[in-house]
Amino acid sequence: MEFPKNISEIIQSSTNYNANIFANLWQQKQLPENGWSDSQLRQFMCWLSNLDSNNTKLRDSIGAGEREGRVCCPLVSQLHFDMSHGIGRSGSLCEVQPKALGSSMMAEIANGLALKVINELGVPSCKAALVTPLATGMSMMLVLASWRQRNPKATHVIWSRIDQKSCFKCILAAGLTPIVIEPKLMGTSGSSQLATDIAEIEKAVEQYGDKILCVISTTSCFSPRQPDDLEGIAKICATRNIRHLVNNAYGLQSKICCDLLEKARIAGRVDCFVQSTDKNFQVPVGGAIIATFKLSALKAVANIYPGRASAVPVRDLLLTLLHLGKSGVKEIIQTREKLFHVLRQKMESLANKLNERIIEAPNNLISIAMTLETIPVERCSLFGSILFHKGVTGARVIVPSNEETTIEGYCFKSFGCHSSHWTTRYLNVACAVGMTEYQIDELVKRIETVYFELLKKLSKE
Amino acid sequence: MEFPKNISEIIQSSTNYNANIFANLWQQKQLPENGWSDSQLRQFMCWLSNLDSNNTKLRDSIGAGEREGRVCCPLVSQLHFDMSHGIGRSGSLCEVQPKALGSSMMAEIANGLALKVINELGVPSCKAALVTPLATGMSMMLVLASWRQRNPKATHVIWSRIDQKSCFKCILAAGLTPIVIEPKLMGTSGSSQLATDIAEIEKAVEQYGDKILCVISTTSCFSPRQPDDLEGIAKICATRNIRHLVNNAYGLQSKICCDLLEKARIAGRVDCFVQSTDKNFQVPVGGAIIATFKLSALKAVANIYPGRASAVPVRDLLLTLLHLGKSGVKEIIQTREKLFHVLRQKMESLANKLNERIIEAPNNLISIAMTLETIPVERCSLFGSILFHKGVTGARVIVPSNEETTIEGYCFKSFGCHSSHWTTRYLNVACAVGMTEYQIDELVKRIETVYFELLKKLSKE
Amino acid sequence: MEFPKNISEIIQSSTNYNANIFANLWQQKQLPENGWSDSQLRQFMCWLSNLDSNNTKLRDSIGAGEREGRVCCPLVSQLHFDMSHGIGRSGSLCEVQPKALGSSMMAEIANGLALKVINELGVPSCKAALVTPLATGMSMMLVLASWRQRNPKATHVIWSRIDQKSCFKCILAAGLTPIVIEPKLMGTSGSSQLATDIAEIEKAVEQYGDKILCVISTTSCFSPRQPDDLEGIAKICATRNIRHLVNNAYGLQSKICCDLLEKARIAGRVDCFVQSTDKNFQVPVGGAIIATFKLSALKAVANIYPGRASAVPVRDLLLTLLHLGKSGVKEIIQTREKLFHVLRQKMESLANKLNERIIEAPNNLISIAMTLETIPVERCSLFGSILFHKGVTGARVIVPSNEETTIEGYCFKSFGCHSSHWTTRYLNVACAVGMTEYQIDELVKRIETVYFELLKKLSKE
Amino acid sequence: MEFPKNISEIIQSSTNYNANIFANLWQQKQLPENGWSDSQLRQFMCWLSNLDSNNTKLRDSIGAGEREGRVCCPLVSQLHFDMSHGIGRSGSLCEVQPKALGSSMMAEIANGLALKVINELGVPSCKAALVTPLATGMSMMLVLASWRQRNPKATHVIWSRIDQKSCFKCILAAGLTPIVIEPKLMGTSGSSQLATDIAEIEKAVEQYGDKILCVISTTSCFSPRQPDDLEGIAKICATRNIRHLVNNAYGLQSKICCDLLEKARIAGRVDCFVQSTDKNFQVPVGGAIIATFKLSALKAVANIYPGRASAVPVRDLLLTLLHLGKSGVKEIIQTREKLFHVLRQKMESLANKLNERIIEAPNNLISIAMTLETIPVERCSLFGSILFHKGVTGARVIVPSNEETTIEGYCFKSFGCHSSHWTTRYLNVACAVGMTEYQIDELVKRIETVYFELLKKLSKE
Repeated sequence: MEFPKNISEIIQSSTNYNANIFANLWQQKQLPENGWSDSQLRQFMCWLSNLDSNNTKLRDSIGAGEREGRVCCPLVSQLHFDMSHGIGRSGSLCEVQPKALGSSMMAEIANGLALKVINELGVPSCKAALVTPLATGMSMMLVLASWRQRNPKATHVIWSRIDQKSCFKCILAAGLTPIVIEPKLMGTSGSSQLATDIAEIEKAVEQYGDKILCVISTTSCFSPRQPDDLEGIAKICATRNIRHLVNNAYGLQSKICCDLLEKARIAGRVDCFVQSTDKNFQVPVGGAIIATFKLSALKAVANIYPGRASAVPVRDLLLTLLHLGKSGVKEIIQTREKLFHVLRQKMESLANKLNERIIEAPNNLISIAMTLETIPVERCSLFGSILFHKGVTGARVIVPSNEETTIEGYCFKSFGCHSSHWTTRYLNVACAVGMTEYQIDELVKRIETVYFELLKKLSKE
Repeated sequence: MEFPKNISEIIQSSTNYNANIFANLWQQKQLPENGWSDSQLRQFMCWLSNLDSNNTKLRDSIGAGEREGRVCCPLVSQLHFDMSHGIGRSGSLCEVQPKALGSSMMAEIANGLALKVINELGVPSCKAALVTPLATGMSMMLVLASWRQRNPKATHVIWSRIDQKSCFKCILAAGLTPIVIEPKLMGTSGSSQLATDIAEIEKAVEQYGDKILCVISTTSCFSPRQPDDLEGIAKICATRNIRHLVNNAYGLQSKICCDLLEKARIAGRVDCFVQSTDKNFQVPVGGAIIATFKLSALKAVANIYPGRASAVPVRDLLLTLLHLGKSGVKEIIQTREKLFHVLRQKMESLANKLNERIIEAPNNLISIAMTLETIPVERCSLFGSILFHKGVTGARVIVPSNEETTIEGYCFKSFGCHSSHWTTRYLNVACAVGMTEYQIDELVKRIETVYFELLKKLSKE
Repeated sequence: MEFPKNISEIIQSSTNYNANIFANLWQQKQLPENGWSDSQLRQFMCWLSNLDSNNTKLRDSIGAGEREGRVCCPLVSQLHFDMSHGIGRSGSLCEVQPKALGSSMMAEIANGLALKVINELGVPSCKAALVTPLATGMSMMLVLASWRQRNPKATHVIWSRIDQKSCFKCILAAGLTPIVIEPKLMGTSGSSQLATDIAEIEKAVEQYGDKILCVISTTSCFSPRQPDDLEGIAKICATRNIRHLVNNAYGLQSKICCDLLEKARIAGRVDCFVQSTDKNFQVPVGGAIIATFKLSALKAVANIYPGRASAVPVRDLLLTLLHLGKSGVKEIIQTREKLFHVLRQKMESLANKLNERIIEAPNNLISIAMTLETIPVERCSLFGSILFHKGVTGARVIVPSNEETTIEGYCFKSFGCHSSHWTTRYLNVACAVGMTEYQIDELVKRIETVYFELLKKLSKE
Repeated sequence: MEFPKNISEIIQSSTNYNANIFANLWQQKQLPENGWSDSQLRQFMCWLSNLDSNNTKLRDSIGAGEREGRVCCPLVSQLHFDMSHGIGRSGSLCEVQPKALGSSMMAEIANGLALKVINELGVPSCKAALVTPLATGMSMMLVLASWRQRNPKATHVIWSRIDQKSCFKCILAAGLTPIVIEPKLMGTSGSSQLATDIAEIEKAVEQYGDKILCVISTTSCFSPRQPDDLEGIAKICATRNIRHLVNNAYGLQSKICCDLLEKARIAGRVDCFVQSTDKNFQVPVGGAIIATFKLSALKAVANIYPGRASAVPVRDLLLTLLHLGKSGVKEIIQTREKLFHVLRQKMESLANKLNERIIEAPNNLISIAMTLETIPVERCSLFGSILFHKGVTGARVIVPSNEETTIEGYCFKSFGCHSSHWTTRYLNVACAVGMTEYQIDELVKRIETVYFELLKKLSKE
């Protein structure tokens, strides 16, 4: 075969071409404007993988330690692009592994891109981000544990109630004592949104004084609970010199949640905010981003982590961000905002038809609650379970009740309602990132179908 | 084309054939005698993946929640066999996810097989095992956190010193206070193994009384530190009614470590022992197995975990165990035991040649320490770094020193020596699972080469 | 973990769910309306693979022949979904392999779907399709070889000249003698499209009589050559009882080419038409579809093939069709038709700007030729090579010349022009399936840029 | 994170490390001594893939032709490492594609390594090898077609009968007329090996004269047929100036077949020998290696091929050879030779037990025939089919018969026996490359079991 005479140069330049793109990403940590193809992603993973010592010098490297990145199942190795060392060292999640530079670089790039994306999405003052191989609750626990260590006498955490177990359990897992502040019902009793009870928080701060380690607030939540009044809480925290941890679980996808963070930082104190990688970026469960407005604030958290960890959640986020590019991330977020209003409108029409109503929660632009007053209280759970069998997952039927739910010894009335005082039963649906217009159509149609089928059935009884 | 007339039956029976194998595994949770092929592993993952609702009824399922297992990057999806829900629920690592039965079953099977393997490898009395998506240190922290919650007044942990940071840091991350017990030097001063100082532990128990939450002991470690005297500690714990947590990091690969666990359980009290999945089973970093001698003891640990977690470490272990089969696991372990003695012998010959000696540590059958007295103390680190550049990873040069290492406020003299009193410098190498005879040859050759090159160089100075 | 009580039923129903979809596809051979996800495609491949005996009964099957589907490189096995038996048997490409039912079914389904797609795309009378693991030229050779065997005295093939080597070489490879009929120049000399010279074909038929095995005509081609007058040729073939083979290489993507086939069949005789899988369906090079209007006509072709063949081209087409679904196939084809007109319009504007013109070829709706009269004839090749270095691949600069090109002993004047008499130099670009609007923009921009750069450079000389 | 200061150098050197290994392979085309890991193979494929223009300059390249390597199904793309251009051009299988240098290099390297392996395995004089994306029969057809074109008057092929359809059909597919020469029965009639009938071949040569295009001989075959007397045939071909094509289908794995080739070349004339990639190297069906003792002899064959072809068979062989390395190839071949004798011995013992005997065929060291005289002739096929249902594939029960088998018009008596005169029924089993000792044990056991079960059943009738 006759190859071009300059074939060696062509080979060299081809090697350099991608190597330069990858080296640039490494140096700049800028999200590319347009997403990369699968092919480019795979080549990038090879490039990184190659920098782990067990891959670089394949037959030449002799492992004499107790942990040498050996992988005995070929399928497993392949699913990791032959990267086996995880991230971090026994010292810290952010330490570089000399044996596994590629893995360490992967983590560093992921952290860099995560920061840029948080800035893009509406928190421009954010200064540092750490992608953790732990889901949101566990990441919050890590933050609390690192704070507790610096301030061992402060054993209590003020928690603006949100009925999601992991957010509560992270306090217990960190060995701290929660002080539960119930949100206030706004408007006519039982019929409108739930908002932060700033006054009660202030009272608790006064009462517990130095024992308070921090306040935990939440942005993204199920309607009719509103995102917390971050500004109000931030002011209290600033004044009283208390830490403030924000549970921003799936808030990165909602401009209003990001704005709240930014405003709170200006108005007062936000020490740390934590968000899920799966809920905001459509990756498999397993990671979160811990973000701060100061670089130093993050280091302490990374240092508390005892040992190495799986690199997969970090890798998945990195691959996904590169797959999307800046334009892809924006498009996904904008589509969601637009589709939320489509869902909102369709749910309003449906509510009219069913003689129900949408419970107002003007700051909650992810989740929608529609009353279920026309379904007898004892049949509401049936309604929910038929919905599930019709293939609708994630819709929740909420029925206030006097029964108490106990979580590791703590009792909650009407768990699921975010408030002991809530009285109206309702259906909750969300328009989260990745939902399509087709799915919204189908969702509303199925709710209607199931509703009328149930009513018909009940009328026969 | 002319197909057999009974083609439909053949198709049905083919579908059933694998389905039966997989259903059997699910019901019995028995490691197959012989390992499965990659093809079978992939089919198994498809089978599981198919049981997650987003895969089963692909176009029919409508996600109306905030977390619906969507994955937007095709490459990421593929690396997870389209399983995106992780394991656990906000309630507990062991809760079943109705949306993701396949993922939950994967975890259950992995736990089942992990238990069987622990039983096989020498801890037949072990009754429960939980594969966690956390490395060893973090898993120990989880255990400590769950114990602390049940016994909030016990704030101290007795720790038989082992110079591996994550084992120490897990105590701090759990918000507890370590009481460091240095191991004793046996034989002539500075020249022989380090063993558990039972007397000092007893003293500490007496002194701190109810404040003691537990004792942490370690099996697998770097020579010349010996595995701890688990029996001795277990007896104290039984008598004093103190919990006992064993750091069995890479001990499953060493029969002697497993025996220690079993004997300790008979002699006294072992509440929990934790081992690394990567160090014992050659999977990528990220998982551990928490094991107990009582089923109930494990549930509390699983419940403390706030939220979901990555399914990958669990999956990797499961795939690897199925890849190996019972026979493969045994073979790997037996090969390691055999090769350890080869390494031991070769290191002894080398020591003779270099006028050095192997430091005795008869119970440590993973790691070997050879004195480095013929290399000037100030050149030992150079020796180590040349070794690293010759492609030898994981070999450690240890030089006792008066300088202190500080870990989150705690100071250690001669960190790396496991004892403030150790005086001999040495080189440490291990024969861990997966090492080959070729690698042992090469290792010893390279140590020798580097040694003589260094000596030559030094003689010229 | 507490699983639903009916977990066994759920597992069974999950197994059945996909098994039913796949069994349906197998029985009906209908392209699904909407494309399948990657996950479903992988599961489908597992399902098929499982039906090959070496996968079904993994450890139980003993191969005692000389060809047992063993694959020793795991990576290779994985790239084939563990299907290693290829398609066909020594008897015929269409014979079922008892050892490899899955592979045979894959071929059968691919043939079925290929037929449906050809019907959909505009050849509703097509009755049989065979996906071959050979590119277009080799597939045509196979057709010719099977015909020759049935009619050994007919040694000549009438070929309506198209300057694409493999279409000509297939005649030689089949051991036949070509009779070249040059297309006619329509309109003003050298300036308009090239069309079939029906009169010359008739003359040749008369002259060679029984020696004529068939006529080869071509639909898809580079402008200004037009698709051949299939009706005219079909009529001659019908009258004279001569076979008619149509080279429909990338014609499936152009409605006008499909219509020609359908009309020709009504008007006269079309025995077989062959199209490329890569050019029409965006799969890697390697396959073609041989299609006929009678089922029996295809069997003879399949039988001539000596031995087995790679299953990959068949698999790739099958996966791609399932990935697209009926709606995807339509959308891709419609988009191309639309974008062709965009390209045509932009090229016309450009031609105006450059004082060039588009050479008319009204039936050619894939490819566009723009004159290059304003570039000196000796610089045209430079123009082409700059274009290539600016990243434009596939654009051809055609310069008529008196030099002859020799292909296996046959000489052609102005090879590339499809005619010895063509006189105008031109640039040829195509809008093939998969091209995007962005690429069209860029293409026209780059042509313009390169043109003016070249002119500037030439003006300085 | 703190990375080493020389991280840029490390990155550069890592990039270079593999790039050098790959560039070396490209320049030297030497099989590495030891096989590569999966990781290295994947990186190598990325490196090659990157040299195809559609991958190198991903967003920058604009395809304006009719075939631009677009792939629309991501799964398909991935299964090809994003290499879509196939190999060859319309001109020849060996032409370089400017758009797809990586694919062309892959073919060139594969050809180079194939040649080295053939040299290694016992044909040191072999000078050129071409890996074709066609199975053995089709590749032989290609050779015949290229010869016929150079010598159109020679229309007949002398074929030393071997009852394997594709070897016969390739003659017909090439449009040639076979002259069948039956092998001779050696020893007592019907009871010993079948050997080349040199006298009859000479007679045919004399009779047909210039009409003879070539003789086709066969090395690897089912016992009791012996490999042909290549030397004898080669001498005739040399004397009479006739071409000689050797069907070496699975002969590369048998030293004796390779020796025959080498000796025949010395003694006379061997123009070309063809071997299967799947049968000799355990890759999926689809490729063959055409090899010659002169470089020029190969070019003509490559040039006859009309158009491009799938790159997959070439890729699979390349990956497999690199996976094995020189040492792996040798080991596999040696293991097979050793295991053949194990099988032979066990079959002899079995034959003794069953009052049958092994039919001698001393040069056939792959396949073994055991008489089946103790099973009634009409029950032999039942014996074969029970064997198949017991999971034994590839074992053949051969029963001579007066019925004729017709292949495309040619009739054969006792097809399967390689001779019309054969009279003994027998069972044929092979020890092909990749067979394991376990499989040999099982095979012999199952034959025995099935035999006695059948006898028991028959005795009851």
